[in-house]
Amino acid sequence: MIASQCPDWIAVDRRGKKLRAWAMADDNTVLATLATSESTEGLDDPGDFEPALLNLIAPWLDDKPVDVIACGPVDRTGGETGKGSGDRVAPPLRPVPCPVRDIDPLLIPSADPRIRIRIVPGLRQDRPADVMRGAETTIAGYLSKEPAFDGVICLPGASTHWAHISAGEVVSFRSFLTFDLFTILAQHSLLRSSLGRSGWDDATFAEAVDEALTRPERLASLLYSVHARDLLQGRDGLVARSRLAGYLVGAELAAARPYWLGQPVTVIASVDRAQIYSRALTRQGLTPRIADETEMTLAGLAGFRGGLDLRS
Amino acid sequence: MIASQCPDWIAVDRRGKKLRAWAMADDNTVLATLATSESTEGLDDPGDFEPALLNLIAPWLDDKPVDVIACGPVDRTGGETGKGSGDRVAPPLRPVPCPVRDIDPLLIPSADPRIRIRIVPGLRQDRPADVMRGAETTIAGYLSKEPAFDGVICLPGASTHWAHISAGEVVSFRSFLTFDLFTILAQHSLLRSSLGRSGWDDATFAEAVDEALTRPERLASLLYSVHARDLLQGRDGLVARSRLAGYLVGAELAAARPYWLGQPVTVIASVDRAQIYSRALTRQGLTPRIADETEMTLAGLAGFRGGLDLRS
Repeated sequence: MIASQCPDWIAVDRRGKKLRAWAMADDNTVLATLATSESTEGLDDPGDFEPALLNLIAPWLDDKPVDVIACGPVDRTGGETGKGSGDRVAPPLRPVPCPVRDIDPLLIPSADPRIRIRIVPGLRQDRPADVMRGAETTIAGYLSKEPAFDGVICLPGASTHWAHISAGEVVSFRSFLTFDLFTILAQHSLLRSSLGRSGWDDATFAEAVDEALTRPERLASLLYSVHARDLLQGRDGLVARSRLAGYLVGAELAAARPYWLGQPVTVIASVDRAQIYSRALTRQGLTPRIADETEMTLAGLAGFRGGLDLRS
Repeated sequence: MIASQCPDWIAVDRRGKKLRAWAMADDNTVLATLATSESTEGLDDPGDFEPALLNLIAPWLDDKPVDVIACGPVDRTGGETGKGSGDRVAPPLRPVPCPVRDIDPLLIPSADPRIRIRIVPGLRQDRPADVMRGAETTIAGYLSKEPAFDGVICLPGASTHWAHISAGEVVSFRSFLTFDLFTILAQHSLLRSSLGRSGWDDATFAEAVDEALTRPERLASLLYSVHARDLLQGRDGLVARSRLAGYLVGAELAAARPYWLGQPVTVIASVDRAQIYSRALTRQGLTPRIADETEMTLAGLAGFRGGLDLRS
């Protein structure tokens, strides 16, 4: 992108503390990409979204207002109905079952005249209590390319969502705190000195998935055993890291079994996470399809933009 | 304690990042107590033990060497046999089954002539892989008061250990990363904004224990639900905090069932944690006995000192 060229619109996704923005042309080609790091300060509170966003996309702004389509937990109150005291008007979460494609993002007031922010509403489920904010856009992007898909979509992010899709609707979903757990265990727990910073051992991962799938109720004990094995059997941080991932993913698969058993499954994730889930699911006799999370999220945001009359 | 009076010996316990020291008289009365905070810098690495200890107990030291009896993960390599490259000679972990009372702490070289450090060896179990460093001293203290105890001791600390005791020996044990998980989830995860800093709701805790005991394999999903319930049902940090504790303790009880089912159980912990486990176990039809963790740990350290000829 030429620095002096301003985008026709801006796509924004927030997941956890990470904020990603794409400068988009009118035909939905990506002109430029910007992202905060995972550990960006000032994104602890959803209410900090707009200042963080303005800071991130400042190079793309000029005097002419530009449309921003955003998904994820971008608002202070979380977009639930009837609670919260934030000063932002957020779109209410939509109860499942509901279609995910033909909906209108909600225009929210912005303190800065250079942007007009529209937010994609997330999904809610009352029994069991669950919320999804951001992944519904990724699902919408996937369904724009595979409109006849009927089955289960697995979306491993900081949290992993499993969504049952039928006739263009999210019928139900269940969410797991899997990678968030992995990250904080690796950084802050007793296990932190046992884990390598990178590397992968596939055999250890597979063994750990099987162990956790067989006895998922032992998760807290399995987690401690990563520490014990390090002390008793030697410090190989790479193996310990793969074992921890295997225990967490295995326990998740055990609990998500009603979702994936006997179903066509598509995993939408970054390459690393897609491979991890694909390996684990393949061991259960499935042949999951893989799709790229960034591509699907962008397709979802572009689809929501397309539904608007932006010149009004 | 009068500031100019030096202790006859010093009892030291390390659990996680927390270091506690007691200035002791020869008759094992406590003259003074010092402790680091949970978040003390410089205690990330077990190798930092001696500098941190010297810093903590400096007010008690003079030119005459004083005996220090210490338990917990105080050494760099963890005390396992045949591995590690630390410069400290640590006592090897002792394999279970083994007695816990009549053992000699190991004198380790100290860089400072004012202290003579003896370290209580921890316990190891090879199948399933497990280690205990510190809690074996608490158990020894309890058995010094209840030498005929036959049953199960539950020791909830940053990690919780369940130990099967028979004829003065630890027969087997299993450890769980429960309160460490609670703490890092509360401080660092997606859940952090949902949890209150304090407070307790007993009905919510009990309900969550039951839920996790019934479906322990769903733990990662239950954890996410704390976040979802916050968004959907209202921000009550006290309730969310009790629910999180209930899920973690319930999942632990499910996995530790072979330990507590039909057994006499003694919970040795701080008052708060003892109450939490006592409530959860009482709901399962048990009548657990309670003992104070600090008192038992001190009794254990004093017992190990008594076994030494300190004037040699």
